[in-house]
Amino acid sequence: MTGSRYEYVKNFELPDPILPGTFMVLRIDGRAFHRLSSEHGFVKPNDERALELMDHAARDVMNEFKDIVLAFGESDEYSFLFRKSTSLYNRRHSKILTTVTSLFTSSYVYNWSRYLPNIALKYPPTFDGRIVVYPSPKEVRDYFAWRQADTHINNLYNAVFWALVQQGGETTANAHSILRGTVSSQKHEILHSRFGINYNSISARFRKGSVFVRERVQPVSVVPLEGYSGQNKAYKDVSDRATSEGILLPQKGKKVKLRFTVLLYHCDIIGDVFWDQRPNILQE
Amino acid sequence: MTGSRYEYVKNFELPDPILPGTFMVLRIDGRAFHRLSSEHGFVKPNDERALELMDHAARDVMNEFKDIVLAFGESDEYSFLFRKSTSLYNRRHSKILTTVTSLFTSSYVYNWSRYLPNIALKYPPTFDGRIVVYPSPKEVRDYFAWRQADTHINNLYNAVFWALVQQGGETTANAHSILRGTVSSQKHEILHSRFGINYNSISARFRKGSVFVRERVQPVSVVPLEGYSGQNKAYKDVSDRATSEGILLPQKGKKVKLRFTVLLYHCDIIGDVFWDQRPNILQE
Amino acid sequence: MTGSRYEYVKNFELPDPILPGTFMVLRIDGRAFHRLSSEHGFVKPNDERALELMDHAARDVMNEFKDIVLAFGESDEYSFLFRKSTSLYNRRHSKILTTVTSLFTSSYVYNWSRYLPNIALKYPPTFDGRIVVYPSPKEVRDYFAWRQADTHINNLYNAVFWALVQQGGETTANAHSILRGTVSSQKHEILHSRFGINYNSISARFRKGSVFVRERVQPVSVVPLEGYSGQNKAYKDVSDRATSEGILLPQKGKKVKLRFTVLLYHCDIIGDVFWDQRPNILQE
Amino acid sequence: MTGSRYEYVKNFELPDPILPGTFMVLRIDGRAFHRLSSEHGFVKPNDERALELMDHAARDVMNEFKDIVLAFGESDEYSFLFRKSTSLYNRRHSKILTTVTSLFTSSYVYNWSRYLPNIALKYPPTFDGRIVVYPSPKEVRDYFAWRQADTHINNLYNAVFWALVQQGGETTANAHSILRGTVSSQKHEILHSRFGINYNSISARFRKGSVFVRERVQPVSVVPLEGYSGQNKAYKDVSDRATSEGILLPQKGKKVKLRFTVLLYHCDIIGDVFWDQRPNILQE
Repeated sequence: MTGSRYEYVKNFELPDPILPGTFMVLRIDGRAFHRLSSEHGFVKPNDERALELMDHAARDVMNEFKDIVLAFGESDEYSFLFRKSTSLYNRRHSKILTTVTSLFTSSYVYNWSRYLPNIALKYPPTFDGRIVVYPSPKEVRDYFAWRQADTHINNLYNAVFWALVQQGGETTANAHSILRGTVSSQKHEILHSRFGINYNSISARFRKGSVFVRERVQPVSVVPLEGYSGQNKAYKDVSDRATSEGILLPQKGKKVKLRFTVLLYHCDIIGDVFWDQRPNILQE
Repeated sequence: MTGSRYEYVKNFELPDPILPGTFMVLRIDGRAFHRLSSEHGFVKPNDERALELMDHAARDVMNEFKDIVLAFGESDEYSFLFRKSTSLYNRRHSKILTTVTSLFTSSYVYNWSRYLPNIALKYPPTFDGRIVVYPSPKEVRDYFAWRQADTHINNLYNAVFWALVQQGGETTANAHSILRGTVSSQKHEILHSRFGINYNSISARFRKGSVFVRERVQPVSVVPLEGYSGQNKAYKDVSDRATSEGILLPQKGKKVKLRFTVLLYHCDIIGDVFWDQRPNILQE
Repeated sequence: MTGSRYEYVKNFELPDPILPGTFMVLRIDGRAFHRLSSEHGFVKPNDERALELMDHAARDVMNEFKDIVLAFGESDEYSFLFRKSTSLYNRRHSKILTTVTSLFTSSYVYNWSRYLPNIALKYPPTFDGRIVVYPSPKEVRDYFAWRQADTHINNLYNAVFWALVQQGGETTANAHSILRGTVSSQKHEILHSRFGINYNSISARFRKGSVFVRERVQPVSVVPLEGYSGQNKAYKDVSDRATSEGILLPQKGKKVKLRFTVLLYHCDIIGDVFWDQRPNILQE
Repeated sequence: MTGSRYEYVKNFELPDPILPGTFMVLRIDGRAFHRLSSEHGFVKPNDERALELMDHAARDVMNEFKDIVLAFGESDEYSFLFRKSTSLYNRRHSKILTTVTSLFTSSYVYNWSRYLPNIALKYPPTFDGRIVVYPSPKEVRDYFAWRQADTHINNLYNAVFWALVQQGGETTANAHSILRGTVSSQKHEILHSRFGINYNSISARFRKGSVFVRERVQPVSVVPLEGYSGQNKAYKDVSDRATSEGILLPQKGKKVKLRFTVLLYHCDIIGDVFWDQRPNILQE
């Protein structure tokens, strides 16, 4: 008995290459995370431990796939940008998409107990993923601006909403009713006048989301940006082990090893500063 | 600041529907499982605990997605067959592919300690996935025959190879050398004459792989097949909780609830018997 | 100067194979034929010469591509069915689609003066094309039933409409108004009572459209169907030259040449008779 | 009888949008034009009348589809560049591809007798077509450079080959043998020393191919390039009728109508000059 008479079924596996010379953005979204967060008692409006767990999974993805040059995460989603010229898995769509989604999922479950040590995971959490292809740098910047603007809108709303509920004693129905039709400045005002909260004093992680960048360790001088997470303690061991890679470049007749690392920021990526300081992200 | 000026980037998410009226087979493969099995000391040639873990993840997938009517697993891979008429996620390719791959991965990590309680998982294991579309029942049968024939070929080889190494004291190089060019009957003969092993007495799980079928509990009379795993203890609690679903059919003016369950077999799926007894798999 | 430094641009030509084992239907539609027919004074409601020109172009397509086993035409559209197992151009989508569309267009222009000798073609007429993939015979039959049902509906409406205008002296607005909301039997009744026309006596070409079938000349006995166009004079020379092909089959030690020809019918293809008499169309 | 029970077959027509923000190049190639040219006695190595017929068909395409900003033709092929932001037919792949291919074909047959008045067309000539998508201006330039480099290579070879055969009395086998392994400068030398032909004195149409550009008639001052076909007599009537379009722009409170026309050049498009003078081609 050989398999050969059945092997023709392999011919139904059609090629699925992604157009060369384009930027791939792979976005992962939590599936039914509303339920996941309520069944596991996530803190409202933001659970820092759960967000750090997301960041950890994202970092594992970036450490594994060196052609990812940028990632942005908020809430239960994460977006990864591959450099334009990547030839990972010959740019096969399904292979790239599933491998990254699987690794992110796996890391999330694997590291759950590190970030939420007192909360038993009740069932296997899942994510979906998709790849969106962008032809030019402008669209890539606008994609990430779109996600961070979304972060801002959602977080401001949630900050006021949960202040009204948790500190103001409002029912959730009342809180929604109070917020209906308000613009941004009015939400700031409610937070400030009623609860004494300056929105901008809220953690940058919540307001800006998480930004991972693959950066040269040396000799680039790192310019601290607003929201930079200097300590980054939770990942220290991981990054020491896994986030450095080397590229050998010829210099004056000897090889110089350029070292890269994956750095986490909670900074603005809508304006030009972030991008102007890192022109390599959108090149090559 | 609203997200609206950036929302045009959503237009780059192109539709990816799978052709209606076709059978989807979604296959998941372990990524770098050679390393995973050696780093975690899996038993050679087959580690029953690790295979049961794969089965558990597959069962979780079938319990979650009722339109999967059949699954076949061997080694570090699993194939899932969706019924032809499924409209899961409007047949969107990426959505189906990533959700299933993610759930499988998640369940694998989540349940690791249940099956390999004394082996600490060292890092997050990952899988890739792909969907292959088949237009007709014949190709679906041949696909599963292809995978089971592959199981047979690999398992027979491995059975002899590891007997030569573990019981015969051969080096791995010698063992490969002895097996080079041998046909099936010669491998049986080596097993029998040199090690007293009747290949057919080896566990059906190893020889046939694992076959999950969604079957009506009542009133169908279940015909036991060769290789049926009657006890199936590890999953009993799971199946009691999660594998039953109901379909309400009108019968003589009252509703009759048809109950389905997911059953595990280690039986032949190359011949006609399996399929003739379950005509519903390839219909609708 | 060589082209080699630019040849990388060929890598952007992505593969586009059509799923094996499926039926392709390629449909061609006239572009802006409302204008074409009015600028060239086509007879209303049906211009037999223009329809014969469409048929001629379709026959040229079938003579060129032997894997087309059936075609159906009405008004300014034509649908071609490829046999399921065709490997024409390795099933490359764009190649098949454009070559057939181009040949149909070319033949239409080339043969215009043969069918409309007194009408100068004022500008180049164009067609668009698409390929729809069907996995099973049922859907293929329903596709052709859909097109012929459409033929019937349109032709009945047009027959009454133009009788009202041309013989009844109604304005076109009145004619539409009279027909609004009428069902099929009422349209028959108007035709009969007001104009003495029995709808079923109208040419089968108009009522049924045109059906081309690739059929064995010998030794199959041809069963005449309702609507068979026996004379088919216009094409006689063409078919003698071009519509026969040969397949060599071994028979009792000698080669027997099976001869096929493309035959034109104006018959029903919604019921079972047509298909039952030609089982080969939906096989292989 | 309604068509409704069959209309579900329309669900098998899957969407096929082309990625937004990308450049589409649609290339048309003559099918079996080796046979076409020999059966109709085309002049070797270049038949100017046949090339003018190709140009005419290309011009008709550009006049019909205003979003085509550039076209390049040589031998039996033509490439059309759509501006990046085109929303023609909602960027549906099959619709764009077939409509353009059909119009090109139709125009070629329709205008045959204008360019080759003494040669009866023996059968319908056909073309195939494909769309290649490029994400950035660089690749678009390199695509057209690739095609023009190909023109040069082929034309130089053919010029020497046919001089050897037609003027030198060599057999075709000998001519190929003489040319085997020669580089560009050696071919120039053969032409010059043996036949007194200065390659650069050969018609620019043959050496450079045909370049159509959609250009503003006013107030842009047209800079004549090497190879510009100033007379362009054959098309004068056509271009007067069809090549102008208008775009209304606000200027000092009144509308100004910008007029565009399609101009034919036989100029270099590999270097920067052509592109620097027409920055609009690769923008928007």
